[in-house]
Amino acid sequence: MQNQSAQRATNDTNNTAEDNPLNRLSDLLDADMDKVNALIIQNMRSDVPLIPKLAQYLISAGGKRIRPLLTLASTALFDGPMDKSYHLAAAVEFIHTATLLHDDVVDESFERRGKKTANLVFGNQASVLVGDFLFSKSFQMMVESGSLDILRILSSASAVIAQGEVLQLAATNDIETDMPTYLHIIESKTAALFAASCEVGAVLSDQDENTVTAMRTYGTKLGTAFQIIDDALDYAADQEKLGKEIGDDFKEGKMTAPVIFALENASEEERIFWKRTLGYKKQEDTDFDHAMEIITSHNALDKTIALAKKYADDATKALSALPNSQVKTLLCDLTGYTITRSF
Amino acid sequence: MQNQSAQRATNDTNNTAEDNPLNRLSDLLDADMDKVNALIIQNMRSDVPLIPKLAQYLISAGGKRIRPLLTLASTALFDGPMDKSYHLAAAVEFIHTATLLHDDVVDESFERRGKKTANLVFGNQASVLVGDFLFSKSFQMMVESGSLDILRILSSASAVIAQGEVLQLAATNDIETDMPTYLHIIESKTAALFAASCEVGAVLSDQDENTVTAMRTYGTKLGTAFQIIDDALDYAADQEKLGKEIGDDFKEGKMTAPVIFALENASEEERIFWKRTLGYKKQEDTDFDHAMEIITSHNALDKTIALAKKYADDATKALSALPNSQVKTLLCDLTGYTITRSF
Repeated sequence: MQNQSAQRATNDTNNTAEDNPLNRLSDLLDADMDKVNALIIQNMRSDVPLIPKLAQYLISAGGKRIRPLLTLASTALFDGPMDKSYHLAAAVEFIHTATLLHDDVVDESFERRGKKTANLVFGNQASVLVGDFLFSKSFQMMVESGSLDILRILSSASAVIAQGEVLQLAATNDIETDMPTYLHIIESKTAALFAASCEVGAVLSDQDENTVTAMRTYGTKLGTAFQIIDDALDYAADQEKLGKEIGDDFKEGKMTAPVIFALENASEEERIFWKRTLGYKKQEDTDFDHAMEIITSHNALDKTIALAKKYADDATKALSALPNSQVKTLLCDLTGYTITRSF
Repeated sequence: MQNQSAQRATNDTNNTAEDNPLNRLSDLLDADMDKVNALIIQNMRSDVPLIPKLAQYLISAGGKRIRPLLTLASTALFDGPMDKSYHLAAAVEFIHTATLLHDDVVDESFERRGKKTANLVFGNQASVLVGDFLFSKSFQMMVESGSLDILRILSSASAVIAQGEVLQLAATNDIETDMPTYLHIIESKTAALFAASCEVGAVLSDQDENTVTAMRTYGTKLGTAFQIIDDALDYAADQEKLGKEIGDDFKEGKMTAPVIFALENASEEERIFWKRTLGYKKQEDTDFDHAMEIITSHNALDKTIALAKKYADDATKALSALPNSQVKTLLCDLTGYTITRSF
């Protein structure tokens, strides 16, 4: 992971290795993250060869491991029992990986993190079933925490994620999708797991209700900011750096912040354009470039980034009542980094 | 449910309503099953309309609800806390339903229980995601049981099911698949949930280890017998009664007991036939009829039913040390019924 982090930072124009708080958090929790990675590998084992094969493919694809890092950081923040947090961090990453596997099947994606998606290499069937396996394994690991409260938090988050995904499916190709609906979708499909990742660290460390709520709010706001920027990058990112095809959301007709902002003051002609390209998915080669022009003319990307920044600021504010510490500073810095990241 | 059960019994030539132990068990636990059904409906609710819509579609398709009945019966057998068993019975049915949804996507099935499959009506994407939702909800309900032991049993069963499904996927179209591999697949994909359904009733009722093991063994053997007969019916059933297309396994190239028995003493010509039809899925209109002829000439269906009967007998034996009761008698009768059922 360290090499990959360093590699990412080197490639990153907005953040050098030194001022990248995600790398600094990774470095601080390096030994703990090694334990989590060991658990991840151990729990991907199976006497069914296709499972470790597909799992290994996913592992080698890298990924930021931001969610397990949040669980570790949230436990470290309160000097909580790190050994118990390893299983939870691994469980959180498994839920995330299972979701990615199923997402790629649902979206019919071909590329993720610069690699062919698992569904393309191993087939949709294997992706659905190995996703189910990882999901089941995540619950097995959670049980190891020995806390019903934590199981309640994570199983509830899983249900919310699935609802968010279904809601997103229903909103796809519907250009009437408004900002509250979009925010509800991303708070469910993305922020819920960020929130749970942070909350379980506080619960594991026997913190009071206010502190648990603060960590949960931090996770919700951070996750929302993270997803908004992810959606902005689909219209703005350097494809090679992002490791995913730019314009994927456009191709699928997904309703995300840049489009929703562009639609708010759209001309009749523009509405017809969005209706054809996103609503009916009738797209021509030049359409994505034209979409970018419309988005730019409405300052829709700037508005999207400003919206994300609002959530990032709220995330920082959520931590204000907590005692100062190195981990707290890094978690606060992470909110700003979420906005400026270009990968 | 009662009406549907009665309807099934009326249609059933081998079992009248009076001597059908599944109906007798349903009748005995009727009030409890109502509570389970209420929980099932309650937990399928969501503010995302597609979820209850798809869920309602599944509910109206009926189904035997044999797994939740086993959980209720296993609790009743030991005078255990029935109120706690309701959540577990509903959770078990949710795991099963989620598996069905994903199975139908993986198998590209068009019909189940005489109705179009959910993936055909609502699309593969919705089926994958609503499956994930039901699976998450099942864990939320399990947490309500307040027992980490039970969560361990059910999360472990879920992981085993997923592994069984992946193993089945890998064995599909491989005519070298042998009987031990087949039994390992069905013990994982089907019997594991039967076993867990029975085991949790004993654990919930604070039974000793021997009793818990007995219930687990009963479930494993019953579930294995159940699946073997299911696989036999795919080559033998009256299509209208079964409510699924006969010959589905053949079309998909699934390696099940009737084919594996037929392959054991296959002529060279027959091996070439199986290789073409199941291995390469190159099938012509008359191939299924020819497959049936080969299966009949090798007594492969009789051998399949005899194998199932062995498991059913083992299921009954597993209960021998338990004190006699009405529920025990019904559970023993159920093993024989599994073999003679024609739906």
